[in-house]
Amino acid sequence: MITCSLDPKSRVTLCDQLFEALRAEIGAGGIKPGERMPSKRQLAQHLSISTATVEAAYGRLTSEGWCESRPRSGMYVCERLPGAKAVAQKEETPVRWDFSTGAADAAHFPYATWARLMREVLSEQSASLLLSGDPQGAPALREEIAGMMRRLRGVDVPPSCIVLGAGTEVLVSALVALIGRDRLFAVEDPGYSRVRRILVASGARIAPIPLSDGAIDVRALYTSGAGAAYVTPSHQFPTGVEMTAQQRGALLRWARETGGVILEDDYDSEFRFHGVGAPALRALSDGEPVVYMNTFARTLAPGLRLSFMALPPELVPRYRAMHAACSVPGFEQETLRKFIAGGYLERHIARMAVVYRGRLAAIERGAAELGLGEVAPCGAGLHALLTVGGKTPAQELAPRAAKAGVRLTRLCDYGVMQMERGGERIVLLGFAGMDEAEIADGLAALRRAWMA
Amino acid sequence: MITCSLDPKSRVTLCDQLFEALRAEIGAGGIKPGERMPSKRQLAQHLSISTATVEAAYGRLTSEGWCESRPRSGMYVCERLPGAKAVAQKEETPVRWDFSTGAADAAHFPYATWARLMREVLSEQSASLLLSGDPQGAPALREEIAGMMRRLRGVDVPPSCIVLGAGTEVLVSALVALIGRDRLFAVEDPGYSRVRRILVASGARIAPIPLSDGAIDVRALYTSGAGAAYVTPSHQFPTGVEMTAQQRGALLRWARETGGVILEDDYDSEFRFHGVGAPALRALSDGEPVVYMNTFARTLAPGLRLSFMALPPELVPRYRAMHAACSVPGFEQETLRKFIAGGYLERHIARMAVVYRGRLAAIERGAAELGLGEVAPCGAGLHALLTVGGKTPAQELAPRAAKAGVRLTRLCDYGVMQMERGGERIVLLGFAGMDEAEIADGLAALRRAWMA
Repeated sequence: MITCSLDPKSRVTLCDQLFEALRAEIGAGGIKPGERMPSKRQLAQHLSISTATVEAAYGRLTSEGWCESRPRSGMYVCERLPGAKAVAQKEETPVRWDFSTGAADAAHFPYATWARLMREVLSEQSASLLLSGDPQGAPALREEIAGMMRRLRGVDVPPSCIVLGAGTEVLVSALVALIGRDRLFAVEDPGYSRVRRILVASGARIAPIPLSDGAIDVRALYTSGAGAAYVTPSHQFPTGVEMTAQQRGALLRWARETGGVILEDDYDSEFRFHGVGAPALRALSDGEPVVYMNTFARTLAPGLRLSFMALPPELVPRYRAMHAACSVPGFEQETLRKFIAGGYLERHIARMAVVYRGRLAAIERGAAELGLGEVAPCGAGLHALLTVGGKTPAQELAPRAAKAGVRLTRLCDYGVMQMERGGERIVLLGFAGMDEAEIADGLAALRRAWMA
Repeated sequence: MITCSLDPKSRVTLCDQLFEALRAEIGAGGIKPGERMPSKRQLAQHLSISTATVEAAYGRLTSEGWCESRPRSGMYVCERLPGAKAVAQKEETPVRWDFSTGAADAAHFPYATWARLMREVLSEQSASLLLSGDPQGAPALREEIAGMMRRLRGVDVPPSCIVLGAGTEVLVSALVALIGRDRLFAVEDPGYSRVRRILVASGARIAPIPLSDGAIDVRALYTSGAGAAYVTPSHQFPTGVEMTAQQRGALLRWARETGGVILEDDYDSEFRFHGVGAPALRALSDGEPVVYMNTFARTLAPGLRLSFMALPPELVPRYRAMHAACSVPGFEQETLRKFIAGGYLERHIARMAVVYRGRLAAIERGAAELGLGEVAPCGAGLHALLTVGGKTPAQELAPRAAKAGVRLTRLCDYGVMQMERGGERIVLLGFAGMDEAEIADGLAALRRAWMA
């Protein structure tokens, strides 16, 4: 049975809250195409709401193509979900300006250096790179990653705790197996929908926990009964808020008192525009189990498929028992090792921080000059939040932008149960994939789309 | 609760069958360290066997370090499992001759060609290779893989059904999510223990199905209630037996009648020493859902992390909805595309088939000359089965070999419930990792270890 915490005090109706929760569950594969939905009466009883509310939510699921009612049998998830249609439609309008948060910068990739190092690796013809190697990744590379974490983030972990993997999907699904499907996985709401989907696909049960002052609500975490919590402390996704020292302390206390495991996704922490940044939870932990996760998708390129995590020492033997091989090719591992050891990674990050600072300024400047609305202060990370002014209805913001060739998302697209107050008018402007001139053009296109 | 089919007619005692099943379950992570085992009475009732049998099996689990009894609380899985100790011990004796089936040949890898193609890829500086790309892998590469499957295996699948992944682990765990954890996954017994472990770690419930005439027993498959079956038809692992046309027909009929999904692992099918080989199940299927799986770990090198599968068309949209990115780096994808398109892969396979045929002959010759025992006819694949003669007790074969610097496994190491008749004296001799001279030396070392 679907479990979700509906908030009767929210300005979003219970019906809409339930609709969003069920749609998210279906989209994530928690209820599969062709599967029967719980009966209205059962679900109403289970969630302590009225049957009329469930009926209204089911009605909206039907009218939007997520479910279908079969006579004398009940409600079923459609075999073809609207997601597939949406993708097809999207391709009709070519995207000229991509403000989506998944975009990446290929133009600044240090191709010459990377290619030179990979040529070196190939010419060394090391036989060991052709074999399966260590399931956590080559020890020499893990040494370099440990050094990098120490220098960039002040996190001190032994290389023996580090695990390399071919992207976030691979690592998160390994974590679900490692930590155990018997635990409930808490996720931030609103939060990173991609990881939410991977958790569900990997067989984890998830509990969306609302934010309180920008960070996961630790009181709600206690009552949820979760045994693990996926969080983005350095730059909450999607709100961009950084977790305070006090909030970090409270979260670690939760882990200590309940034995819960913290999954700390430190994505984008390398790009910081104001202030120093709080230490990572992993650096603050005093024996509480914190899995530190990060990726080279943003600091280098997503197509390299390079991510890593630092496990609590006690989970390492189990990880090694479960995995016979590392998912990253030997040639790439050795190229990355040379790249970090040669100091190229840190130089590249420093260079890109300047580039990204310029782009963020272009967004702030452009939005003000064009009167698009207000840009929230952005301390770190590669997307800004714009509260759109003017009179375009909130639900029209993304479709009108799409028609003008601009791809973007709204803050409310990332919520399961919780709709941020006013979140319907806040759009995310990712600036990893465009230069300053393109950003200016993209903002001008948005002005035409929204303010004309 | 653990479900396993005990065979009262087997020559292996029920106690030993149950011990092996529980040990496999613990080793695979199905019951975790620190977890409580079911009570003796519950388990006996559940499996319809006597409490005394369960008690004896639990006694053996305790004495061999898998479980511990806690006063007034019951039986618990040990926090530190014997597997970890075994690994530590193994490293004490250096391995000079590696007959394990996971070994690979790095010496014959076409380094010059691969390096030249990868340099080409790097010098083209394609920005698209740096981005996430298609979640199934680049369409142009999938075209080449489809062509290769047609030419080498007579399997005709559209490129749109092909999925590339960073190794078997990644693909199998994606398949469990795709097919659904509500289905029971049948596996061959004896069978490929690594895939069994990945299935369990991915949250699948498994049902070990005995072999009948060398192939999965389809009658047992019907009664098991399985909704998916992982099989190795071209070269059953570990017995090496090829599935007959009649057995293939029966298996496809099972899929048709029950809606079960067949996972066909076609590993090692490229290396064939006698006869033509039966067509793949996927080629024979007439709408029955068959997932065809294969890897470049054997035809090229395991360190490249290149595997692929061909999904039934109806599963493709769901796969795409679940995955945002392919786990294989863009540079490697493009290098592999050039490698197949240039005809290098098929030339390399043809060359290696000659090399491997010579090694198999060296095993057959050496075993006969040294009087080690009888080598079973080997039609395909990269390991031979030797029934060891002489008087060394069966359980001493592997330890004595290890002391002499030889790594190998016994057929009975791969069984969950089923011990092949005489399987205790059959050892697997993988010949992928050694040349003919090394094989001869390794066999001489075995003679000294076993026959002295």
